[in-house]
Amino acid sequence: MRRYFHPETDDIRLPGVLFALSDATRIGIVVALSDGSERTAGDLGGDIAKSTMTHHLKILREAGVLRVRSEGTRCYNSLRLDDLEDRFPGLLKQVLSSAARDGYAMADTHR
Amino acid sequence: MRRYFHPETDDIRLPGVLFALSDATRIGIVVALSDGSERTAGDLGGDIAKSTMTHHLKILREAGVLRVRSEGTRCYNSLRLDDLEDRFPGLLKQVLSSAARDGYAMADTHR
Repeated sequence: MRRYFHPETDDIRLPGVLFALSDATRIGIVVALSDGSERTAGDLGGDIAKSTMTHHLKILREAGVLRVRSEGTRCYNSLRLDDLEDRFPGLLKQVLSSAARDGYAMADTHR
Repeated sequence: MRRYFHPETDDIRLPGVLFALSDATRIGIVVALSDGSERTAGDLGGDIAKSTMTHHLKILREAGVLRVRSEGTRCYNSLRLDDLEDRFPGLLKQVLSSAARDGYAMADTHR
């Protein structure tokens, strides 16, 4: 089973988190996962090319924004809500609120 | 007098703002200006090379995070606090609070 790198909670860095959130597609991914769900790349992808989605998920994972869990041949992505709240209380909620204001969602990420 | 591009308030975009804030030096600049002060690149720069500081200030300006005002041969930078609050209420304050948590400041931006 493939092992994915995830930073420890204490190693999650503010510039890295903000960079991970600085792209419309990645904001859409975070919005889609903000209900606490676990989703595969395919669930999240819509018309986005698989390699592009893999790239975006890797940036979010390496910044500590999401976690990947392998189960058999499938990989499930979920937000590290508690870890992010522990490191930067209120930050993700604030970004989600700003994203909601501009209507970001997975169906509408190309801008 | 040189004219600098500044996006209109309505044209300030969330991914662009988050990208502008996704770098330790730029977070330090925003922290330094968060008291509402106007500062020149030289005031802000410390040991940072002038060309590097110019680059960081340009990214912040083009994202709508700061405004440059020319006066004679000098250029003064200040945060667009009201415009950002208008577009994304609470966002900058939240990023500043997360930055304070990790001790970001102009004197300590290299990490």
